[in-house]
Amino acid sequence: MQTLSVALGERSYSIHVGTGILDRADLIAPFLAQRKVAVVTNPTVAPLYLGRVAGALAREDIEVVRIIVPDGEEHKDWRALNGIFDALLEQRCARDTTIIALGGGVIGDLAGFAAATYQRGVPFVQIPTTLLAQVDSSVGGKTAINHPLGKNMVGAFHQPRLVLADMETLKTLPQRELRSGLAEVIKHGLIRDAAFFDWLEANLDRLLARDPDALEHAVVRSIAIKAEIVGQDERERGLRVLLNFGHTFGHAIETGLGYGTWLHGEAVAAGMVMAADLSRQLGLLSEADTTRIRSLLERAGLPTAAKGITPGRMQELIRIDKKARSGRIHFVLLERLGAALLRADVPPGAIDHTLSRLAT
Amino acid sequence: MQTLSVALGERSYSIHVGTGILDRADLIAPFLAQRKVAVVTNPTVAPLYLGRVAGALAREDIEVVRIIVPDGEEHKDWRALNGIFDALLEQRCARDTTIIALGGGVIGDLAGFAAATYQRGVPFVQIPTTLLAQVDSSVGGKTAINHPLGKNMVGAFHQPRLVLADMETLKTLPQRELRSGLAEVIKHGLIRDAAFFDWLEANLDRLLARDPDALEHAVVRSIAIKAEIVGQDERERGLRVLLNFGHTFGHAIETGLGYGTWLHGEAVAAGMVMAADLSRQLGLLSEADTTRIRSLLERAGLPTAAKGITPGRMQELIRIDKKARSGRIHFVLLERLGAALLRADVPPGAIDHTLSRLAT
Repeated sequence: MQTLSVALGERSYSIHVGTGILDRADLIAPFLAQRKVAVVTNPTVAPLYLGRVAGALAREDIEVVRIIVPDGEEHKDWRALNGIFDALLEQRCARDTTIIALGGGVIGDLAGFAAATYQRGVPFVQIPTTLLAQVDSSVGGKTAINHPLGKNMVGAFHQPRLVLADMETLKTLPQRELRSGLAEVIKHGLIRDAAFFDWLEANLDRLLARDPDALEHAVVRSIAIKAEIVGQDERERGLRVLLNFGHTFGHAIETGLGYGTWLHGEAVAAGMVMAADLSRQLGLLSEADTTRIRSLLERAGLPTAAKGITPGRMQELIRIDKKARSGRIHFVLLERLGAALLRADVPPGAIDHTLSRLAT
Repeated sequence: MQTLSVALGERSYSIHVGTGILDRADLIAPFLAQRKVAVVTNPTVAPLYLGRVAGALAREDIEVVRIIVPDGEEHKDWRALNGIFDALLEQRCARDTTIIALGGGVIGDLAGFAAATYQRGVPFVQIPTTLLAQVDSSVGGKTAINHPLGKNMVGAFHQPRLVLADMETLKTLPQRELRSGLAEVIKHGLIRDAAFFDWLEANLDRLLARDPDALEHAVVRSIAIKAEIVGQDERERGLRVLLNFGHTFGHAIETGLGYGTWLHGEAVAAGMVMAADLSRQLGLLSEADTTRIRSLLERAGLPTAAKGITPGRMQELIRIDKKARSGRIHFVLLERLGAALLRADVPPGAIDHTLSRLAT
């Protein structure tokens, strides 16, 4: 087991990465303010891991409330959130009851937002069971639900007390979900660590074959990159925005096609190809590196263009998203492999050109 | 104009109290991150003050989005909150758009919770237009919506950047609302300042007649007491809980009768009589002081007992509320006029006895 930490003063926390650590209730127990937890999960994850997690907690004399919400990005909404609040109140969960998210990114975002707002905030622990959640959404304290007009438009920053990432849970992950998680892994190399990108090129086949050592390395390296950025800019006032590489286009794809049609990592993969193409057009990224990016994503079985959404609709969704988020149209681009930057001066013609090639 | 401050490190802010300061957009402008605000108000307040506030902001070249939500505690719910999010997104409000609450406690709680969670948090300004909001809910950063099983069960701590309390808005306040606000004013004297309680006894008639100097003194003194407590315990981990004097019983009355049936201050008034009675039973408060409290509330035209809700139902609602909030049944009591304390050892028989006398 390796332990990383996110340095945020009094909100600092540890992330344990290892194999078979899902039922290490002894790691969780010291962080509980009250010997009662509410585990939020979905009908896909519950039969696989809820019994093991709840059993281990019960053996430590911890009362476990089980809350099951529907699976899928299309359910990351008010309805599911209210379902969590109903259950918390019916089961008399108090201000010092800890909420544990057991599942992927949707569960983490929903349970995390519930933890941020139930009684104005209760303690929170993440047990991410997908690659995407392990390398991305379980780290950094962003929680949210979607709005029909934009992804993650309502939410809160609420840091967990602890994250347990168990490589064993990746064994049961559908291949499509594994590939989706790899998109965010590759993103971390692209924006911050060229050597890690090289390693990914060399080890992609081991990752797709779920070699546990390769997966653990990819997860640890991704978390280390994200933790370092979040530690410097918790609230996304500057540096942290670089983690959104590929996400402007990606969110437009997800919102445009309807939440849940594409997995988040799939939309981000196509979005990263678009952002790389934009970087190339602006003379930042070489033709050869642009090709390397697309090739690696292709090898990972990820989409490298948007289908079923016109360039015009993409433009419109990007405009809405950007206006709503920052009031400005700026893009995260690459100046080379391993180095991202924020640019506010992207000519509309360049965006048109990228979309006309990569969205149909 | 008098200015008080709430000392919370980087989240510190000023509260201006004065007459005719509603349209002092020059006080607001320095706090705006972007020259765009969304003013949230209701159909009762809008015709009275929205034009003046929006006009003054527009003259400072600030774009004003107007958002009207339904009036009343029964609308402090998901539906109204979502209405605010819809409007913010449709009007392209961004992460640096400031939300201004113009209205009473319901507007402040709703708009404040929207500000806490829209895009994971945007800046917030309070312009409270009721006595209750001026002396209580606009200070301290508590925001929330109600749940059918409990009041304020979902919310966040989100401090405003600025509060503008204009005594002029109290001229249009219905008498019932003025009385409701006086309940929280009296509470501040009871828990923290015996001399202020004496002053209230001596000046109640001036307050009911809306003497501007008397009102300003009552507002300033109340805010000073609350600000001092919040500055020491922002997140209600200790001292701040004393501000909930009368609120355990009060919340049970509000939830039991249905939100909006009684005004918040009315329920708190009856709740304070109950809490005082409990204090007397436990030998903390003298018979004479218990009578003084009830008499002052009576003179203010406030209820001093609950009607339409049985002692048994009150007990049940208190148990649910306490279990949900803290997992423990503890009560804020008075050891004398001007001094509150928290007690976890209240015998159930004493609560029964109080309720049998004061709830029918």
